[in-house]
Amino acid sequence: MSKHRIAVIAGDGIGQEVMPEGIRVLEAAASKFNIPLQFDRFDFSSCDYFEKHGKMLPDDWKAQIDGHDAIYFGAVGWPDKVPDHVSLWGSLLLFRREFDQYVNVRPAKLMPGVTAPVVRRDGSPREPGEIDMVIVRENTEGEYSSIGGRMYPGTEREIVVQETVMSRIGVDRVLRYAFEVARSRPRKHLTSATKSNGIAITMPYWDERVAEMAKQYPDVKVDKFHIDILTAHFVQRPDFFDVVVGSNLFGDILSDLGPACTGTIGIAPSANLNPTRQHPSLFEPVHGSAPDIAGKGLANPIGQIWCGAMMLDHLGHRDAHDAVMRAIESVLQPGSGAPRTPDLGGTASTADVGLAIAQAL
Amino acid sequence: MSKHRIAVIAGDGIGQEVMPEGIRVLEAAASKFNIPLQFDRFDFSSCDYFEKHGKMLPDDWKAQIDGHDAIYFGAVGWPDKVPDHVSLWGSLLLFRREFDQYVNVRPAKLMPGVTAPVVRRDGSPREPGEIDMVIVRENTEGEYSSIGGRMYPGTEREIVVQETVMSRIGVDRVLRYAFEVARSRPRKHLTSATKSNGIAITMPYWDERVAEMAKQYPDVKVDKFHIDILTAHFVQRPDFFDVVVGSNLFGDILSDLGPACTGTIGIAPSANLNPTRQHPSLFEPVHGSAPDIAGKGLANPIGQIWCGAMMLDHLGHRDAHDAVMRAIESVLQPGSGAPRTPDLGGTASTADVGLAIAQAL
Ligand SMILES: CC(C)[C@H](C(=O)O)[C@@H](O)C(=O)O
Ligand SMILES: CC(C)[C@H](C(=O)O)[C@@H](O)C(=O)O
Repeated sequence: MSKHRIAVIAGDGIGQEVMPEGIRVLEAAASKFNIPLQFDRFDFSSCDYFEKHGKMLPDDWKAQIDGHDAIYFGAVGWPDKVPDHVSLWGSLLLFRREFDQYVNVRPAKLMPGVTAPVVRRDGSPREPGEIDMVIVRENTEGEYSSIGGRMYPGTEREIVVQETVMSRIGVDRVLRYAFEVARSRPRKHLTSATKSNGIAITMPYWDERVAEMAKQYPDVKVDKFHIDILTAHFVQRPDFFDVVVGSNLFGDILSDLGPACTGTIGIAPSANLNPTRQHPSLFEPVHGSAPDIAGKGLANPIGQIWCGAMMLDHLGHRDAHDAVMRAIESVLQPGSGAPRTPDLGGTASTADVGLAIAQAL
Repeated sequence: MSKHRIAVIAGDGIGQEVMPEGIRVLEAAASKFNIPLQFDRFDFSSCDYFEKHGKMLPDDWKAQIDGHDAIYFGAVGWPDKVPDHVSLWGSLLLFRREFDQYVNVRPAKLMPGVTAPVVRRDGSPREPGEIDMVIVRENTEGEYSSIGGRMYPGTEREIVVQETVMSRIGVDRVLRYAFEVARSRPRKHLTSATKSNGIAITMPYWDERVAEMAKQYPDVKVDKFHIDILTAHFVQRPDFFDVVVGSNLFGDILSDLGPACTGTIGIAPSANLNPTRQHPSLFEPVHGSAPDIAGKGLANPIGQIWCGAMMLDHLGHRDAHDAVMRAIESVLQPGSGAPRTPDLGGTASTADVGLAIAQAL
């Protein structure tokens, strides 16, 4: 089997702390399933790098990274050192675009041993597996455009405009991916996030493309909700949803809200995929660099480890993915006696949890 | 005291059913507090009107409405008859703009007798009053622009663009209103919704204006969160928030999500205000026309009644506002024996609840 070359970018804050645990578990999986993995570490795409070099990336970053089969990413951003829009547009958002990672996939699943902050209508708690959705986000265009500017700056008449841009190519390819995911799941249910009643130029177009694509997937049950009421439904009946597809902004919002409803925002994973495989895909936990807890060794590494499982799946090792997921679930299981970090009510360290999952494997 | 002239627009679906109850309670309050109210009813701004006349409004709608002191509004929209973006842009959204109702205010408060779907970290239920926030939304510009269009329509190269537009005048006036609301409340805490890390032209401008305005309100504690994580915080710690200010789109989302977290989306009110009073302000429940339950007399009228209370406050009758709110709370009180509509677990009709609140008054 040819070697998988993984570019490792730990980045800022707790990214540095959870990454070693992610790699520890990947190495355990690699040896168990006999998967040849090679890790190449890079120090750029971090605010420390920016402080030394005045930029987030070296000029030849693309050549350095592009030959890899995947990017294993920690977290980037440290607002006290570099403004977020500089650090993010100078690294993570650039990777998504330059490597054309046009799909962002984020599962939101109620895991064992985690209490969901949203309860059933009768007030009783929701059970593991009762919430199980995948959010599919457009990742390269939409509301995150770089077109726009400011007029009459600094005056009373100041005006700022920014374009939202949707292309047929860009919308259709992410919808196709989302419909395929929906088709592959038992419930075959796809929900589209829209706001065509208020954002009345781009969003009606999004709706049109969903309706058009739906014709090719008669086996998939499709519905749509405006983003405002959709966020309300996530809270009131999260069990209703299976696959949810949204534009760059709506997908961003829902993929934080979904994991928040399952109580897993600190441990949720995310995959930035280029399904054509012409460039590497990027796997990162949903949590950020968390300046407030960084440096204490208390960050929960499960998000990073869960991403590693998604990466193994992407590299063709479904069995290894499943085994890592089972190891995570066994360690989360209440009464397992396994260590838990403070965010889950325990006192264990990042490394304790990483070790426990590697051992469970 | 000079008469208050109220333009009544019941609109579509359950708007027709909850409006009579709203008026019933307003009339009870008017007679109790000796407030001279005059109700002028209009049949336009409904999809039935559209079916008859081919448009949502008569040509002279502005002249007909503009002399009023307030607009008491039910709900508009009936997608089977008229597409939402036609009915809404042809009425509600037009009123907001033509009457320059640049602030949309929506309280999200955990009321007695209502179970919040979001629980505390330890799984215990939240108590009445524990969540008590006001969402202040920009209501005339931002993401709801009408500038944009389509290129290469119908082809593979199709591209759709839409501008987000923020002006200093538009941003500052809603921020000023929000800071004033924050200053008037005991906690004096203002949260700004942003997304300056991703939407890197308009949203950094919003942040700048917040920072600038904050200098004039040193007594108000200000923080900001990106909209994605902010929706997560609404679920995880809604008690943290006091006043939350957002752009047109972000305010729209948060003002559905906030009431959803307090379990009151069916009863929440909303005020579209022109604080200059050069044109009438508009008071409408957050819920829509609800085609699924319309015509059955089962809709909860509390949203419409609560709006009526906000309207009384706006017209200068704080005492009458407080009395209506007390009447609503007494009817919601568990064990009060008062009627409840099916959405709150009862079997009462719209009229039963309206009558009970009028009597409690
Ligand atoms: C109906 C729709 C256009 C409207 C909006 O988005 O403003 C509604 O959601 C609201 O919040 O009043
Ligand atoms: C950091 C930020 C720019 C980013 C985004 O909005 O895409 C993040 O929220 C995410 O979801 O990966």
